Amino acid sequence: MKLFSLKQVELTGGYLFEKQELNRNVTIHAVYDRFSESGRIGAFDFAWKEGMPHQPHVYYDSDVAKWMEGASWILCKHDEPLLTERVERLIDRIERHQQPDGYFNIYYTVCKPGERFTDRNMHELYCAGHLFEAAVAYAVATGRERFLHCMERYADCIYRIFVEEQSAAFTTPGHEEIELALLSMYRYTGNPRHLELAKWFLEKRGGPERDVATPAQNQSHLPVREQTQAVGHAVRAMYLYTAMAELAHLTGDGELLSVCKQLYADVTEKKMYVTGGIGSTRVGEAFTVPCDLPNEEAYAETCASIALLFFCKRMQENENLASYGDTVERALYNGVLSGLSPEGNAFFYENPLEITLADRYTYSWGGPRPLAITKRVHLFDCSCCPPNLNRLLPRLGEYLYGQEGDTLYVNQYAGSRLHGEGISCTMETDYPRDGRIRLTAEGVGKVALRIPAWCKTFTLNRPYELRDGYAYVENGGEILLTLDMEPFAVYASPRVAEDAGRLCVQMGPVVYCAEGRDNGGDLHTLALPTDFACQPYERKRDARIGLDTLAVKGYRMESEAGGLYTRTTPSLRPETIRLIPYNSFASRGESDMRVWLSALLR
Amino acid sequence: MKLFSLKQVELTGGYLFEKQELNRNVTIHAVYDRFSESGRIGAFDFAWKEGMPHQPHVYYDSDVAKWMEGASWILCKHDEPLLTERVERLIDRIERHQQPDGYFNIYYTVCKPGERFTDRNMHELYCAGHLFEAAVAYAVATGRERFLHCMERYADCIYRIFVEEQSAAFTTPGHEEIELALLSMYRYTGNPRHLELAKWFLEKRGGPERDVATPAQNQSHLPVREQTQAVGHAVRAMYLYTAMAELAHLTGDGELLSVCKQLYADVTEKKMYVTGGIGSTRVGEAFTVPCDLPNEEAYAETCASIALLFFCKRMQENENLASYGDTVERALYNGVLSGLSPEGNAFFYENPLEITLADRYTYSWGGPRPLAITKRVHLFDCSCCPPNLNRLLPRLGEYLYGQEGDTLYVNQYAGSRLHGEGISCTMETDYPRDGRIRLTAEGVGKVALRIPAWCKTFTLNRPYELRDGYAYVENGGEILLTLDMEPFAVYASPRVAEDAGRLCVQMGPVVYCAEGRDNGGDLHTLALPTDFACQPYERKRDARIGLDTLAVKGYRMESEAGGLYTRTTPSLRPETIRLIPYNSFASRGESDMRVWLSALLR
Repeated sequence: MKLFSLKQVELTGGYLFEKQELNRNVTIHAVYDRFSESGRIGAFDFAWKEGMPHQPHVYYDSDVAKWMEGASWILCKHDEPLLTERVERLIDRIERHQQPDGYFNIYYTVCKPGERFTDRNMHELYCAGHLFEAAVAYAVATGRERFLHCMERYADCIYRIFVEEQSAAFTTPGHEEIELALLSMYRYTGNPRHLELAKWFLEKRGGPERDVATPAQNQSHLPVREQTQAVGHAVRAMYLYTAMAELAHLTGDGELLSVCKQLYADVTEKKMYVTGGIGSTRVGEAFTVPCDLPNEEAYAETCASIALLFFCKRMQENENLASYGDTVERALYNGVLSGLSPEGNAFFYENPLEITLADRYTYSWGGPRPLAITKRVHLFDCSCCPPNLNRLLPRLGEYLYGQEGDTLYVNQYAGSRLHGEGISCTMETDYPRDGRIRLTAEGVGKVALRIPAWCKTFTLNRPYELRDGYAYVENGGEILLTLDMEPFAVYASPRVAEDAGRLCVQMGPVVYCAEGRDNGGDLHTLALPTDFACQPYERKRDARIGLDTLAVKGYRMESEAGGLYTRTTPSLRPETIRLIPYNSFASRGESDMRVWLSALLR
Repeated sequence: MKLFSLKQVELTGGYLFEKQELNRNVTIHAVYDRFSESGRIGAFDFAWKEGMPHQPHVYYDSDVAKWMEGASWILCKHDEPLLTERVERLIDRIERHQQPDGYFNIYYTVCKPGERFTDRNMHELYCAGHLFEAAVAYAVATGRERFLHCMERYADCIYRIFVEEQSAAFTTPGHEEIELALLSMYRYTGNPRHLELAKWFLEKRGGPERDVATPAQNQSHLPVREQTQAVGHAVRAMYLYTAMAELAHLTGDGELLSVCKQLYADVTEKKMYVTGGIGSTRVGEAFTVPCDLPNEEAYAETCASIALLFFCKRMQENENLASYGDTVERALYNGVLSGLSPEGNAFFYENPLEITLADRYTYSWGGPRPLAITKRVHLFDCSCCPPNLNRLLPRLGEYLYGQEGDTLYVNQYAGSRLHGEGISCTMETDYPRDGRIRLTAEGVGKVALRIPAWCKTFTLNRPYELRDGYAYVENGGEILLTLDMEPFAVYASPRVAEDAGRLCVQMGPVVYCAEGRDNGGDLHTLALPTDFACQPYERKRDARIGLDTLAVKGYRMESEAGGLYTRTTPSLRPETIRLIPYNSFASRGESDMRVWLSALLR
């Protein structure tokens, strides 16, 4: 389906709208301030010299470029003079310090002059990609193309060096990103060289550089057309697959699409947390093996879930399957938004599904046990996630609607207005706080409504045909869809060892967790009957987080016996279990936390 | 209580006797052969030069000394000319290469001459300790004191350097062992300097060397009298605590005993696996924090469980509590014997409580996930465990009987004969294959029989008084004790997160596990009702391993739903679960394995 662009869609109210506003009012500024304080903004002055503080890091360009892209997408909808001024000042400096041949990179200009394109793993092309994306966003948002022209010159420089001269010390980037960025650029400029260069980097991957050390870590172990399993660094993998899916769409490449479908299935059916988190290990921030989904050791980087959204979006362009919208929803409401504090100014990089503070010990041999941090922070050394949120949130409108022929597809539910060419739609809903969705469309004959995979019962005010996860209805008048928003139990596949005998609670698309601060210690002793949702439960709006908390009837395993091991069967004492949306974990300070609770199977 | 020495006790038949015989007939020779092939025996020629193979390692002396000690304890009971010849040839070389001042160490003589006692962490005093223990054993066993005299001279050398001159670069050893060895030597020689030197090393610990890097790793973080929590390297900790407990006994030091009791409680009530394994992490082969007992990542080194037996034995000398015998039994039948293959020639160093072969992946970033090996091996680079088995098994008789005043204590059950001074006893039993124990004692008025903590019901053919875990009876005629040997479920304390909602099966002292080869894959989907033992079950003698296997009625969790996450509650399909004694895991080749199975709590 053809997705509607940000210019055509506007969020008008509700939960996602509030997150967008939070980003516009708080997060985008908080990230800029932290970047300013940490020397990332100042690095664009190209004034750093040995001995000065804030030596530019290889990924500073990308951090700031992602912030610029985020600011641009906000400017697409809002007049924000401060953001405009900051972006323009950055563009001034980019223009000033771009080299005559088009090259632009702070680290390689200031710290390692003369060494450009010598080290595949130093994020040079990755930084270029993020600058390209920012330039396109700013052009789309404001119509001003000064930045874009700079970046087109940089793209020409890269084309010359990598394709024509082949004079770089490597063939493809160690961290993918430029591929998808060039495709975005191509969509805006229509310049076939941008498409060609993206294709070049994609098709060369896994060829000459197959024999580098640990090639799977950055998906260089095989030519992309032979890759069927998601491996290595999760963010890199998702950026690569996103570009592959977009190239397949833009060029009608069925073979490449087939590869993408296998990769999508491998991720979502074998390697994805219930929160939409991906990357089971911090070693290499990477995928491991099928169904290896440890909860406490989960890495599940915020960026990886964001990048999973990108991949789904591009797949959605290829295929009219609701599954892509399901995955977007799972990741967005859980593993993506968990990366942002309710106040909008503190972040998580890793998003584990379990925290036991007592496990965060220091080895007697020295050094801490390698587990995720448990307190939200304002800036990371490698601060890729916060500006990734900056650029995702303003753009959420793009995930809502699509069109194929005479059919309007509704992929996500949020209060919004669509104004396409000869097509319009108004959606009123307080989803996911409420399951009622009211929709009026014009200019199409049919409307296809995604029925979330989690939803067992729904009502529609007219006949429908269910196909590939969508309810297809004839258009005309007000369409009323009501999704059942009672809490329910989710079980992992029995193939997932870590979750066997456990369940997690979900309400709508929102995954819940228990925190120690609400439930006393020892969360592993909490147990829920499989029919807990048939018992009375409490549901209460938490204004701070914008969603409901739950109190359900469960049990606590206790033992009358002392000592470490006993023959006495643990007893189950009835206890109210208090649950909060997973995406707000640790937002009241650090605490034990658990998504998967013991299930009382019978 | 006073424990009876090896000379006074003889195993006459049954499971432990068979293990002793296996050691005498196979293991002791297999270890010698591996040590010979790997250059450990040859190292005693002191002929290694740069460029030659088999450079002596810092712990080669100790490996071979432990083997010599094991051979000696065998010689205590049996005429084994080959063992005698091998030990004598080693003593020849020790005598020949001992330095004029009494010093003896292969590594520091051959590889680093002139650098003796400069590096606390190079196992020099640890090697000395093992040589001392071997020399005492050989003297006890054979009456020949040539080796002992060599080692007495070495002890004098150490006394001079550490106590008189204080000229070494350190004060206490990085790896404890010499302390308990000197106490053994003192018990044999009666030389007060041996006692004094042991005390010196113990009392200096945690004093001057408190500020080394990672002092907790080798228990140097506090003076020993201030240590109340088991920390650091598990084997080192146990060797230290063993010496402390023995010193407390030998000197009637109540304060030190009180410290030992706290340490014992900390280990057995907070940091010990159900198998008697200790050391929760491979990082530093060490203890972590209370109730952190991961099953798959368990380190649980064979040596650590063996050393726990040593500690218990010394505590038993201090106090007439059955708890020490309970812990000996738990460790011996499970986490110690799991280190030895049923054939007696292959070993485990780590003894995890869970193996999932699919989890043994290589990170995409390179390198394997750090988990225990899954195949029994014949020689380790650091081959401390096999000779530790060599020296433990011949000496098991020492764990059986004790005396306090007019009471004979029976701490372990095994077919055996005791001949003490004015006291004798015959025990007939096929324990743990059978719960009937028949006992006739002479020369005492009372007999105290340990009633294992795992035993809920037992019968005794006379009145008894239960106190501190012992059933005290009047002596006279045949005493018949029958322990209930039905399988039962064991639950971990709810404080142990890893085992919450799980149970393990035990029969007598033997912990059982399920292997993939008997139960298909996905052991995490197996579940047992808490009353499984009330259902009919099968029990079958496995001649190869010398114990019974079990087949019990349980369930397998299954899901009709596809995909990774579902609202469909898993179903429980009845399935026979086949269990084998934990101590024989992986003895038919590598396989998935699990001790703690899901429990169907109600």
